[in-house]
Amino acid sequence: MSAEALYDVMSTQRAIRRLRSDPIPDDVLSRILTAATWAPSGGNQQPWRMIVVRDTMKKKALGDMYTTLWEKFAAMYRKRFEGLSAEEQAKEERTITAGDYLCAHFHEVPAVAIVCFNPKMMAVTDAKQDRISVVGGGSVYPAVQNLMLACRAEGVGCVLTTLLCQVEGDVKSLLSIPDDWYTCAAVPMGYPVGGGYGPIKRRGADELFFEDVWKQQISL
Amino acid sequence: MSAEALYDVMSTQRAIRRLRSDPIPDDVLSRILTAATWAPSGGNQQPWRMIVVRDTMKKKALGDMYTTLWEKFAAMYRKRFEGLSAEEQAKEERTITAGDYLCAHFHEVPAVAIVCFNPKMMAVTDAKQDRISVVGGGSVYPAVQNLMLACRAEGVGCVLTTLLCQVEGDVKSLLSIPDDWYTCAAVPMGYPVGGGYGPIKRRGADELFFEDVWKQQISL
Repeated sequence: MSAEALYDVMSTQRAIRRLRSDPIPDDVLSRILTAATWAPSGGNQQPWRMIVVRDTMKKKALGDMYTTLWEKFAAMYRKRFEGLSAEEQAKEERTITAGDYLCAHFHEVPAVAIVCFNPKMMAVTDAKQDRISVVGGGSVYPAVQNLMLACRAEGVGCVLTTLLCQVEGDVKSLLSIPDDWYTCAAVPMGYPVGGGYGPIKRRGADELFFEDVWKQQISL
Repeated sequence: MSAEALYDVMSTQRAIRRLRSDPIPDDVLSRILTAATWAPSGGNQQPWRMIVVRDTMKKKALGDMYTTLWEKFAAMYRKRFEGLSAEEQAKEERTITAGDYLCAHFHEVPAVAIVCFNPKMMAVTDAKQDRISVVGGGSVYPAVQNLMLACRAEGVGCVLTTLLCQVEGDVKSLLSIPDDWYTCAAVPMGYPVGGGYGPIKRRGADELFFEDVWKQQISL
């Protein structure tokens, strides 16, 4: 078992929004889904399910909802980078163009995983804090990350999106999701148009990690 | 880049609660932290920071808080498996015994990552839904999962715990975490006592994945 192979996968895990319509072979998709099942969860409850949407009409319906939300989001997002340099603005515009591409081709993407969760199966330890809760996500997003790392390792493009949560009721109706289950992500999956995975831009460990107290630089 | 290597890592990612006090070499810890930085987040905001606690007095203080919460949790947890078979009860008791071990040795664990997040840096798309929110976790737990997969690949044991969120105010005081940052996990890391990583028990993909509509078996 090689740590280097893992780091190769992780360090090139780009968000891929331009996806081809070519099908994902069943054996490849099967390995990707199985990788998700291995993720840890609180009390090993695995309080998540994913609906892999491959039906074109259902993908069209999801894509229509997604497009409406994306257009509003993109307008807001553009305002956020008004002050940036021309170079940085161009980079952000490329992300928006890729999102536009995803909207236009949502129904052609071979598979869209709709991630569902059940709060009754979770011990949400921050539920009583006087701020937005996130801990339920700790039993779901590790599985989503496994799914996406497996996609990357198999050369299948994907991107984690959460906009559809804003119209959760409509998504639940479309896919017959029961009352006590909710949605927390949609992951479109397909082979990349163009280059696909590659270098990523992230803050370094020296910015993101401290030692013993807040803001104290870690000595490594 | 080999998908098999990734699957080897993921399929043996056990929760390891019995950790030795031996230090984690700086180069190993550095690679583990760097792996976390690569994870995707909404708008690439990386709205998380981690404090790696290595100071013994601070670990002792965290361990005391954790022990109080764990004892309450373990009592509740035991009630949950009263109806199970003797074999299953014995398995759950082993988990509790391992948790007791973690409590007794918390201050000796070489490093405890306290995961922090800032909701102001997140677009929480399910904030207005009439149920507990989880989407903020989508920009944090992928990094936590990267951290833990890197631990596994390096042979360093770890476990995702969230009990300390119940006493978030005390944790924030201890580590001087500012008002607008909160906590969502603690990950003790150290070399395993005994066997460490190995086979895991999870639901299969056929139980966790559906196709097109809820409960419809996926054909792969």
